[in-house]
Amino acid sequence: MTAIPTEMRAALEREQRSVEGILRRLVRAERGTPTRLRRAMEHSLFAPGKRLRPILLLWCYDAVGRDGRRRARLSRSGALQVAGAVEMLHTYSLIHDDLPAMDDDVLRRGRPTCHVAFDEATAILAGDGLQALAFAVLGRLEPVPAGLLDLVATAVGPGGMVGGQQEDLDAEQQPVTAARVLSIHRKKTAALIAASLTAGALLGGASEQLRGKIHEAGIEVGLAFQGADDLLDVTASSDQLGKSAGKDAAAEKATWLRVDGFERAQSRTERYGRRGQQRLADALGGGASATRLLALIGMLWRRNR
Amino acid sequence: MTAIPTEMRAALEREQRSVEGILRRLVRAERGTPTRLRRAMEHSLFAPGKRLRPILLLWCYDAVGRDGRRRARLSRSGALQVAGAVEMLHTYSLIHDDLPAMDDDVLRRGRPTCHVAFDEATAILAGDGLQALAFAVLGRLEPVPAGLLDLVATAVGPGGMVGGQQEDLDAEQQPVTAARVLSIHRKKTAALIAASLTAGALLGGASEQLRGKIHEAGIEVGLAFQGADDLLDVTASSDQLGKSAGKDAAAEKATWLRVDGFERAQSRTERYGRRGQQRLADALGGGASATRLLALIGMLWRRNR
Repeated sequence: MTAIPTEMRAALEREQRSVEGILRRLVRAERGTPTRLRRAMEHSLFAPGKRLRPILLLWCYDAVGRDGRRRARLSRSGALQVAGAVEMLHTYSLIHDDLPAMDDDVLRRGRPTCHVAFDEATAILAGDGLQALAFAVLGRLEPVPAGLLDLVATAVGPGGMVGGQQEDLDAEQQPVTAARVLSIHRKKTAALIAASLTAGALLGGASEQLRGKIHEAGIEVGLAFQGADDLLDVTASSDQLGKSAGKDAAAEKATWLRVDGFERAQSRTERYGRRGQQRLADALGGGASATRLLALIGMLWRRNR
Repeated sequence: MTAIPTEMRAALEREQRSVEGILRRLVRAERGTPTRLRRAMEHSLFAPGKRLRPILLLWCYDAVGRDGRRRARLSRSGALQVAGAVEMLHTYSLIHDDLPAMDDDVLRRGRPTCHVAFDEATAILAGDGLQALAFAVLGRLEPVPAGLLDLVATAVGPGGMVGGQQEDLDAEQQPVTAARVLSIHRKKTAALIAASLTAGALLGGASEQLRGKIHEAGIEVGLAFQGADDLLDVTASSDQLGKSAGKDAAAEKATWLRVDGFERAQSRTERYGRRGQQRLADALGGGASATRLLALIGMLWRRNR
């Protein structure tokens, strides 16, 4: 992200380091993991990522708990573990999406993809292992907050992230409509982004009603994030993105760009972003942590990587 | 399984039907699942399987709860949902293990494998979706019994089932020793079988100490089950097995057969089986449900499919 105020950049980097720290500990602590499998998981997990989902989770936790003076359901170090689990789930989805049978990509987060650096079988297993480990991490929380597992597992399940990837692949044989793109983006990207914010809210002590509002806002935030991703595919270089640019167009992917053209896709993305940000602001009320979270979200559809 | 007493066969079939019933409901209930993904999950899930792991879970639940007159942590219909989740995890592992990049198999449970009936990408996603759905099912229990998620997720994680599959693949480049085969079989097969029994015990109200004993017995039961699998690869036909026979030898898989030869592998399998059965009998004490569970376990290393 460019033109990020120094203070925000420092806060993001601090949070990225704490997420990477917990990820390292969680992977290392898993007894009996074969060396090659651990190295493959670490290869993808510790490639330079934005750590967006875990940071959204943590900052929403802060906004709900600290700003709102609610009684948290889990300590912040517990929330950091959940944030790590969410990043594992996101990383597993990248590893599998990049496989030859899927999007067949060789570059991700500025590194060779997992199946290129290792081999296909190991990449499939590294993804499988990260998914299982993410849920094991949730299962070791004491206590496991009610509703957390359902929230996260549903977001990445057949009606969420995995279903979105299936629709994305199926769309290659079908006419691309705005409704289809919306369904794909909602499931494949927005579901986990919304679940990350909502999980933060849940852990921070939000009521069910507040969680519902945050989830709705999170879906729009996620759609704006994915909209920006579609735009970047044509405006940015592979070097900037850390993944192959221009692939959507080449693969005739279902994107708003294809349905709407660049300018209308851009205004659609901005519309989702502004609406999501506004809804989240309304739900959270005020406070320093909420302000910081909203500023981050404002950057998501204006990013350059 | 042959030469099964009529009463046992009827009990197994009844339980298989209830497991298949809950699986059907759970998959159908998942809102937003794309049709092709759901059909791929169902293809593998409803191929004729033994449903061994869910039945071990349910019968251990009965033995601990009913026979032992303990206070259950979950109703039997709740335990049936957990049993369904365990079968989903097992099925996902079969789908991924059969992929071209893994064991590259075309036949499973008497049907074309998932990637043959659909395509590779869909098979990867069907496996991913079943894993996520299994955890979502656990997450929707009310309440989610403490320790259940950790138990199940650890069993299928990088130090368990997924790690075992990695070691199995890695073994193709390494000398096969008895210690290596033990490690592979323990992680790849015995971990989930032991976790199924232990989950049943946990839900049935077993103390931590009793669960520990059942888990240890379950590892030996799982080793005997896998030992029988290795033997069947050379003695049974593909038709009997519902999967390709003779593949271990052809692929030079790490099995006890390769380390020990047939007869010693056979007596090793029987030794694990008898010891596991005895330990489980000691842990459970007596009762009709325990007797039935132990009889089933006695059949596991004498099976012909």
